[in-house]
Amino acid sequence: MHFRDSKRKVDYVLAYHYRKRLAQHQHGASSPEPMNRAGSMTVVSNGETRKGRLKLQPDSGQHIPQELLGAQMIELGPLDALEEEKRLQREEYEHNLVAAGLEIEKDAENKSQGLSFVRIHAPWQVLSREAELHKIKMPTKKMYEIKEEGGILKKLNKIWCKLTEPLQPQVPQENTKMKTVDIFFSFLGINTLIANNVYDAAYPLHDEFLRNCKIHLKMIALTNLFIYLFISLFFFRKYFGEKIGLYFAWLGLYTEFLIPSSVVGIFVFLYGCITIESDIPSKEMCDQRNAFTMCPLCDKFCDYWNLSSACATARASHLFDNPATVFFSIFMALWATMFLEQWKRLQMRLSYFWDLTGLEEEEDEKDKLTWNDRIPGYAANCGLILFMIMLTFSAVFGVIVYRITTAAALSFSTNETTRSNVRVTVTATAVIINLVVILILDEIYGAVAKWLTEIEVPKTEKAFEERLILKAFLLKFVNSYAPIFYVAFFKGRFVGRPGHYVYVFDGYRMEECAPGGCLMELCIQLSIIMLGKQLIQNNLFEIGIPKLKKLFRKLKDGRTEPKEMNTNQSKDPQQWDLDYSLEPFTGLTPEYMEMIIQFGFVTLFVASFPLAPLFALLNNIIEVRLDAKKFVTELRRPDTVRAKDIGIWYNILSGIGKLSVIINVTFVIAVTSDFIPRLMYQYAYSQNGTMHGFINHTLSYFNVSHLKAGTQPENSPFAQDVLFCRFKDYREPPWSPNQYEFSKQYWAVLSARLAFVILFQNLVMFLSVLVDWMIPDIPKDISEQIKKEKSVLVDFFLKEEHEKLKLIESFITRDKHKQKSGTKDQKSRSASFCQFDRSQKGSVASFSSQHTEV
Amino acid sequence: MHFRDSKRKVDYVLAYHYRKRLAQHQHGASSPEPMNRAGSMTVVSNGETRKGRLKLQPDSGQHIPQELLGAQMIELGPLDALEEEKRLQREEYEHNLVAAGLEIEKDAENKSQGLSFVRIHAPWQVLSREAELHKIKMPTKKMYEIKEEGGILKKLNKIWCKLTEPLQPQVPQENTKMKTVDIFFSFLGINTLIANNVYDAAYPLHDEFLRNCKIHLKMIALTNLFIYLFISLFFFRKYFGEKIGLYFAWLGLYTEFLIPSSVVGIFVFLYGCITIESDIPSKEMCDQRNAFTMCPLCDKFCDYWNLSSACATARASHLFDNPATVFFSIFMALWATMFLEQWKRLQMRLSYFWDLTGLEEEEDEKDKLTWNDRIPGYAANCGLILFMIMLTFSAVFGVIVYRITTAAALSFSTNETTRSNVRVTVTATAVIINLVVILILDEIYGAVAKWLTEIEVPKTEKAFEERLILKAFLLKFVNSYAPIFYVAFFKGRFVGRPGHYVYVFDGYRMEECAPGGCLMELCIQLSIIMLGKQLIQNNLFEIGIPKLKKLFRKLKDGRTEPKEMNTNQSKDPQQWDLDYSLEPFTGLTPEYMEMIIQFGFVTLFVASFPLAPLFALLNNIIEVRLDAKKFVTELRRPDTVRAKDIGIWYNILSGIGKLSVIINVTFVIAVTSDFIPRLMYQYAYSQNGTMHGFINHTLSYFNVSHLKAGTQPENSPFAQDVLFCRFKDYREPPWSPNQYEFSKQYWAVLSARLAFVILFQNLVMFLSVLVDWMIPDIPKDISEQIKKEKSVLVDFFLKEEHEKLKLIESFITRDKHKQKSGTKDQKSRSASFCQFDRSQKGSVASFSSQHTEV
Repeated sequence: MHFRDSKRKVDYVLAYHYRKRLAQHQHGASSPEPMNRAGSMTVVSNGETRKGRLKLQPDSGQHIPQELLGAQMIELGPLDALEEEKRLQREEYEHNLVAAGLEIEKDAENKSQGLSFVRIHAPWQVLSREAELHKIKMPTKKMYEIKEEGGILKKLNKIWCKLTEPLQPQVPQENTKMKTVDIFFSFLGINTLIANNVYDAAYPLHDEFLRNCKIHLKMIALTNLFIYLFISLFFFRKYFGEKIGLYFAWLGLYTEFLIPSSVVGIFVFLYGCITIESDIPSKEMCDQRNAFTMCPLCDKFCDYWNLSSACATARASHLFDNPATVFFSIFMALWATMFLEQWKRLQMRLSYFWDLTGLEEEEDEKDKLTWNDRIPGYAANCGLILFMIMLTFSAVFGVIVYRITTAAALSFSTNETTRSNVRVTVTATAVIINLVVILILDEIYGAVAKWLTEIEVPKTEKAFEERLILKAFLLKFVNSYAPIFYVAFFKGRFVGRPGHYVYVFDGYRMEECAPGGCLMELCIQLSIIMLGKQLIQNNLFEIGIPKLKKLFRKLKDGRTEPKEMNTNQSKDPQQWDLDYSLEPFTGLTPEYMEMIIQFGFVTLFVASFPLAPLFALLNNIIEVRLDAKKFVTELRRPDTVRAKDIGIWYNILSGIGKLSVIINVTFVIAVTSDFIPRLMYQYAYSQNGTMHGFINHTLSYFNVSHLKAGTQPENSPFAQDVLFCRFKDYREPPWSPNQYEFSKQYWAVLSARLAFVILFQNLVMFLSVLVDWMIPDIPKDISEQIKKEKSVLVDFFLKEEHEKLKLIESFITRDKHKQKSGTKDQKSRSASFCQFDRSQKGSVASFSSQHTEV
Repeated sequence: MHFRDSKRKVDYVLAYHYRKRLAQHQHGASSPEPMNRAGSMTVVSNGETRKGRLKLQPDSGQHIPQELLGAQMIELGPLDALEEEKRLQREEYEHNLVAAGLEIEKDAENKSQGLSFVRIHAPWQVLSREAELHKIKMPTKKMYEIKEEGGILKKLNKIWCKLTEPLQPQVPQENTKMKTVDIFFSFLGINTLIANNVYDAAYPLHDEFLRNCKIHLKMIALTNLFIYLFISLFFFRKYFGEKIGLYFAWLGLYTEFLIPSSVVGIFVFLYGCITIESDIPSKEMCDQRNAFTMCPLCDKFCDYWNLSSACATARASHLFDNPATVFFSIFMALWATMFLEQWKRLQMRLSYFWDLTGLEEEEDEKDKLTWNDRIPGYAANCGLILFMIMLTFSAVFGVIVYRITTAAALSFSTNETTRSNVRVTVTATAVIINLVVILILDEIYGAVAKWLTEIEVPKTEKAFEERLILKAFLLKFVNSYAPIFYVAFFKGRFVGRPGHYVYVFDGYRMEECAPGGCLMELCIQLSIIMLGKQLIQNNLFEIGIPKLKKLFRKLKDGRTEPKEMNTNQSKDPQQWDLDYSLEPFTGLTPEYMEMIIQFGFVTLFVASFPLAPLFALLNNIIEVRLDAKKFVTELRRPDTVRAKDIGIWYNILSGIGKLSVIINVTFVIAVTSDFIPRLMYQYAYSQNGTMHGFINHTLSYFNVSHLKAGTQPENSPFAQDVLFCRFKDYREPPWSPNQYEFSKQYWAVLSARLAFVILFQNLVMFLSVLVDWMIPDIPKDISEQIKKEKSVLVDFFLKEEHEKLKLIESFITRDKHKQKSGTKDQKSRSASFCQFDRSQKGSVASFSSQHTEV
């Protein structure tokens, strides 16, 4: 953790691979003889001439004169020239670092090629100077404390007067130092050098604090989630900076909020389980005595069937399609609003505790491009995004086609078991195909979004990040939800009716929902995609692949440097070696993305899957631990970044929240579920106010003689007995003058559905606005605290000014006296000292006032 | 405008009525003799003993010893004791003012009773000290300028060192001074004294600047609205303070925004006028050949009638009920969003130009009441508000009853003209009654809201104002819009059907809409209430009543003090006399309220009255002038109040904007207008895709033999010929098995209406969010300017700190030298002077940095 003198702390590490033309032990040799010997040890395998190498100065530690290099460049092979160029850039960069006041320590490059580290220590003077130049705000809490106690201030001032080095505070603060180093480096352009492969990596070191914490974390991990979260929150902020701290705070709050919704979800599910026996429609459906002869599900090969054979699906549907679901939908819409409100408050609170209230992200805009320069970028963006969305849609359509054709193919089958399980087989395989497609496209879309954003050349780093996130989110959102949207809103709506079916391609009928309604299928789709995505993406991709990569790299390193390993193994691996072997930190975007897609699953379609919050909760409890572990042990320590809020993610969350009101509370319940038709039946059409006869009411009649030629069931054992078959729709019966037109009931139910949508959309929106308005964005204690601190500051500042002026008055008077008397030299000087003390105090006050300004 | 020395400006005036026990010319007399003589000149007419008076010190100008007063109080009559008490309070208050450093000038109280003025001049020292104590921010622009020019700063500093009075800047700024005086006075509790009638009034003076402006304003008033607005905006801000300035800025922007909407509104109206001839449904209705025999409009006395007799209404309806209206509704919803966005930007811009960016309204909370103390207040609030709303509803219901009964009564009439004009007569009189009720209730509700808010005891002044506004708005909103809502959404919907009418009271049928639809009636209602309210409230109440009051007071003063008038008339009336005769300023609430209720008229129901924006525009052009004139000539100059924004009014505006989307774009078009049925007919039911036959399609059949006994028309000339009569509804015909039930068309049209609501509500909301998101809240130039100023400040501050430290280093080094040499006294002193200059600059910088912090 320290330089070889064990005093100076290693603040930052640069790592690079070197490859030398001459091995270290031939240092200073200039005859061709040993060079050839060395050739056997280097791994230079390209067929360039040895001539060029002869002219090289073998001591790579020294600076190569520019004119000499120019001459050499011509004669060097392209690879070696590049290597040489890089070495020069490194030397220049390190030279600059030293010139800037940093202290560096390098390993000797004692192998022909290999990994070398530049360890950097930043003395406090340099940091504070840089901080001042770059306007980084120092933590002011400390100063604030000092200010309020006049006694200490005076004492400090006395000490101050005796010191000759006025620039260096005695108590450097760890956290500020860390921050300053990072910003310092990014200003110096290390990122460009890494991008150009001059250096391999640049990272601050994990330190002992971490190791202590790791044990600590393991101890707590199994005991309690919240203590764990609470501790890790402050640990993460201190160790990784505010941006990562905010992520964990957000994740913690979200997980916490999932608890009540899980509980309510379980109760809703249990309510469905309990009432299943008393549900009249599903009982009627299962009753063998009610012989509803249904129209065949496919042409020619399918037979008429009895509705009671779909009994199981009907019963299962009731689990998700009951009055409690309506309540749960409204609950979840309000839950989302509440969560966002609480997050705003928590963010504000953290801002205050973490001294971020005055933070402003200022960035220089890159050189401005004209509108004309941007047009190709924007055009490519729009085009490709549209293309990608079309790709997603065609994937979904492809799966639909798969389902239709497979179902048709399977129904030709002579095997009775196969035919009876057609629906289950098709649905299950299709969902798995969907899942795989989603997972593959997700990876592709991530890369595409990045490439598109680079094309667009956003003006600032922040804009780059925001646009990248928006694009990636848009693509991944469409990707994840397109199949679910299809099932929720479109499936089974374009089937046509018996005798007038809608056909796709050549004679394949559009697919229908199961007799229990599409909600059951929506639930299956949702649960498999959500769980599958979570399991595979989070656990396999996030944990498995980095481990594999690490293993792979270890193996590779072991193979290429087998000899040198032996020499290294003798001494303990240093912290920088260990950290170098970790994966680099690539930003929080994947973490947020995953959670926000999950948030969508939890809120958007919760009406069809009340257990979604529970599964999300279980996932997150693991996720928090995995993420924490990953950050601490699997990744290099990221540069600390200050951030005031979670940025664009908040907007996305709030957009999902709004969408959830529309989709969840209204469309799912009104459009997909049977809630409204049931209510309508009970209160408008039922003879005795009960649900008896509901199934009969929802089924229309069809005269089998109207079936088109060639679509009648073949080999039907009871085709002769069937005069009318039934299908699920509200249509006029065959004996009506407008046969098979939509019936009055159809329009009445549709009106009721739409009225429900209007009513509930406005109600829930109104409630959301109310919640938003009732909960203040800034917690009261925080706003009061800020106000108090501010007023203390202003008072202090004004008092200070008064005193200063008074002092000057007395000083001037004294000065006049002295001019007359010409003596009392000593007094005047002491007065001016004190005056300086005061002006110092004044500057502290103004610094702090800037800081606490909200 | 000045004290008698013509030098010191009168900053503030206190006015009071005095009544003396002894006249001035008996000053110093102590014998009972002249006292009795004086008795004839005083107007003391109560029968108290003269004994008490004898003991009074006759010189009211001198202070009465407290112990003496205590003895007297017992013997004085209650009225005189009160008078004496007030005089003492005044004396004490004026004594305090003088003690606080203010300079006052009083008129001699040379009459037995009358009006006296205390004129106050606030010297700059006092103001700046108070400003500092109360943390009032000084304008910093000036300081900022100075800072940037180091040369001037140094020169100024040299001058500074020679001055012995360091506290007083040389250029006092008028505006700041004004502000400080007001705040100063409010701190000293003048409001309490006015409330207790110790003083009559306290106000700053109108000044010459005003008089110049008055001429100026008159010159511009007739030329151009916008130049006028632009000038008056800056004039008002400078003269009355930011709060009133913001009101005029808001009014100006609103008026400006009304221009495009008026233009579009006129075009929509013209479109209606032009297309009226080509409108097939109204042509069909007017065609005498189409003999639609309609069912009678009332029982017994009304006859069957031909639809073509309602031709005129149908044609008029088309003016407001055409496809352009739909477009206009969407336009206005977006217009409202755009207006709010632009206002946010303008507010931000003004904030910046008026140096309000750092302004924070801090108020001390009053002593805290417990929840128990508040319960009665809250309960009374809820109860009374509910009661008031019920009162409004019953007023509306009363008018409905009036309409029903009068219509019934008039239809008994034997006079043919009366009977043919029943509908017109009833509608017109009912609307006028509505208008009168609204105007009366408006005044009552204003008082009730104030009383309710006082009961509630809000914690701060700001909370008081906000709650008062909210209550008053709620009540006045309900009051103004209840009759309109009734016509828009309820009228004609609870009529029942022929043979099964809904009756209220004893045999009165519920009222129906005219055959052309309710939209026509809505339009009449809206235009009369809107125009009537504007004309009567704005012009009569706002201008007429203050003038009457002034006249009345003048007459009264002339009657009670006829003798003293003569003595006064010789000299010119002073500015304070003139100002005292004006009405006091009572706040901006009525002005805002009026405009916001108008905003509601313009946005909420614009679909039914496209000319509303035009009338609003015309009203506002006058309103701006009247308001400006009122503020300048009819009211006492108000205390300047700083305000950063228009406060709760913005929320109300935004609420109306949201409501307008729901009401206007969706319900009016979908529910009230015939837009959807027409579309449905054209695309679903029409034989040839045209509107021919629409009227026939909307009319249901009724078999006259099904009319209940006693409700058949008496004395009908063609009762024998009529088998079926028609009525406007979608119901099954008499020959259907479900006769008179709602038909399939009814449900289909209802579904279409509701689908339209959902579609448009979400579309317009989405567009609003888009507009909100596209237009940044802070104008780009302003945000850049703020950023630039801030960075200049930070740079300046850092440089300053650096220089200071450098200087100190050199100073210390020199000090050491001097300690060794013991000489060079002079140099050290000059260094300390310079150092002081620097610390001054530092404090300026920190002051400004606080100020520009956003």
